[in-house]
Amino acid sequence: MRPTVHSLQNSRVKAAATLRDAGQRRQSKKILIDGIRESACAANSGIEIIELFVDAAKLDVAGNDQLAQLLQRVPANCIQPITTQVMKKLSYGERHSEIVCVAKAPKTELSELQTSSNSLWLVVDHVEKPGNLGAIVRSADAAGVSGVVFTNPVCELFNPNAIRASLGTVFTVPIACASTQAAQEFLLNQGCRLIAARVDATVPYWNIDYQSPTAIVLGSEAHGLGADWLGEEIQSVMIPMRGSADSLNLSASVSILLYEAVRQRQARINRLQ
Amino acid sequence: MRPTVHSLQNSRVKAAATLRDAGQRRQSKKILIDGIRESACAANSGIEIIELFVDAAKLDVAGNDQLAQLLQRVPANCIQPITTQVMKKLSYGERHSEIVCVAKAPKTELSELQTSSNSLWLVVDHVEKPGNLGAIVRSADAAGVSGVVFTNPVCELFNPNAIRASLGTVFTVPIACASTQAAQEFLLNQGCRLIAARVDATVPYWNIDYQSPTAIVLGSEAHGLGADWLGEEIQSVMIPMRGSADSLNLSASVSILLYEAVRQRQARINRLQ
Repeated sequence: MRPTVHSLQNSRVKAAATLRDAGQRRQSKKILIDGIRESACAANSGIEIIELFVDAAKLDVAGNDQLAQLLQRVPANCIQPITTQVMKKLSYGERHSEIVCVAKAPKTELSELQTSSNSLWLVVDHVEKPGNLGAIVRSADAAGVSGVVFTNPVCELFNPNAIRASLGTVFTVPIACASTQAAQEFLLNQGCRLIAARVDATVPYWNIDYQSPTAIVLGSEAHGLGADWLGEEIQSVMIPMRGSADSLNLSASVSILLYEAVRQRQARINRLQ
Repeated sequence: MRPTVHSLQNSRVKAAATLRDAGQRRQSKKILIDGIRESACAANSGIEIIELFVDAAKLDVAGNDQLAQLLQRVPANCIQPITTQVMKKLSYGERHSEIVCVAKAPKTELSELQTSSNSLWLVVDHVEKPGNLGAIVRSADAAGVSGVVFTNPVCELFNPNAIRASLGTVFTVPIACASTQAAQEFLLNQGCRLIAARVDATVPYWNIDYQSPTAIVLGSEAHGLGADWLGEEIQSVMIPMRGSADSLNLSASVSILLYEAVRQRQARINRLQ
């Protein structure tokens, strides 16, 4: 482990801090991860941690098993203790993490996704807010999806806000970024049924069978899905709304649809047993 | 309509600005509402608007029907045009609303809630974050609940963040604040079945019948439900989780459970037709 850094002028700290800027992250193909839990998710998923900044004051605290386990997973020469003062400057917003990692941006090609015999995919088009993206992936994790495909995302997949809202599940759930056409080809080639949520659909989502390979598709909160998600091979469904507001939020809609699939699939397993 | 106020030192503006402080809101029994949509929800629900501050620059903009309708619903002597500069100081965070209202805090007694023959209630215990509270009410609105009862809330029901996250549905969905005991008595007296979501339950939520009068009960994200929601009259259920994270977020869990009730109730109507 390197000696503790006390200065904000340290070149490693300065280089890491530049990654708070989205343009710098994109250009360098690196990401920043705040927090022990989130960093552990990344390390456990095989994401390459290039540098791990740790609050030196927390290194001596007994009983912080999560931190100890994380430090064991990262090569010692990548671990950089820094003072609490320096950590405050480096960590995100008001969070004051014990840990900030610089990592290699994960691959997000469709070809990286593993297909399986009875897959359940989530596709979200034009996602706009990192917080929404993170919440969506958190729900997708709970539902045990095969993966999440973001078509034409407006925000970064590994934005610090997205990582935080996902509780680190953006690293454990297989995720990819693709064009609409590439995503549709990928899913149809697997024999997936495409089920698209639209506010103007007439079929309630619960009238559909989700037990064979399925992809559930949703659009952005502001704009919904475009005409490129209409067609013979795509079943449109709606979530009935009974209130005064226009819509459920995106992660609520995602949760409702994914758990209908989970419910139906479990009912099928129960029938077969 | 009063003449436009140009000064931050205006006594009405200063008095309204003090309501950004939660203590001031509690003491005065007033709330602040940011935004046209949210203010319209309040006005349409019979909530007393005491003062409506409007950005004078927006008053002359043709085609702002939502604003025009809102202004018609509020007595003229309550409408206070202010300059954009003054609005920037009065409105919340970076939002720069066109409208900020001072309103009388809505009643939140259980006795205000209307009972019905086949009610569906949502109960959330110890809700901590205004943003969560708002998102929960937004989902409850979409599901068409009879009302939402917050037992022992840690945050304010009409916090500006809660109002915003709810899209104003905190004003249109009947909501109440109560002790655990009072809420249970209220619900059991109506013959409601109490269904409590717990991470340590063994029965999946989809194995339960939600077609008779039902109250769905959830705890806070951090702590879940306590022992006061265990008992003979309460059915514990769990939402199966298949991923690496501990939990769905609270509003996702609320959405999944409420929509299972909506689904079952609609299926029953379809059978009866």
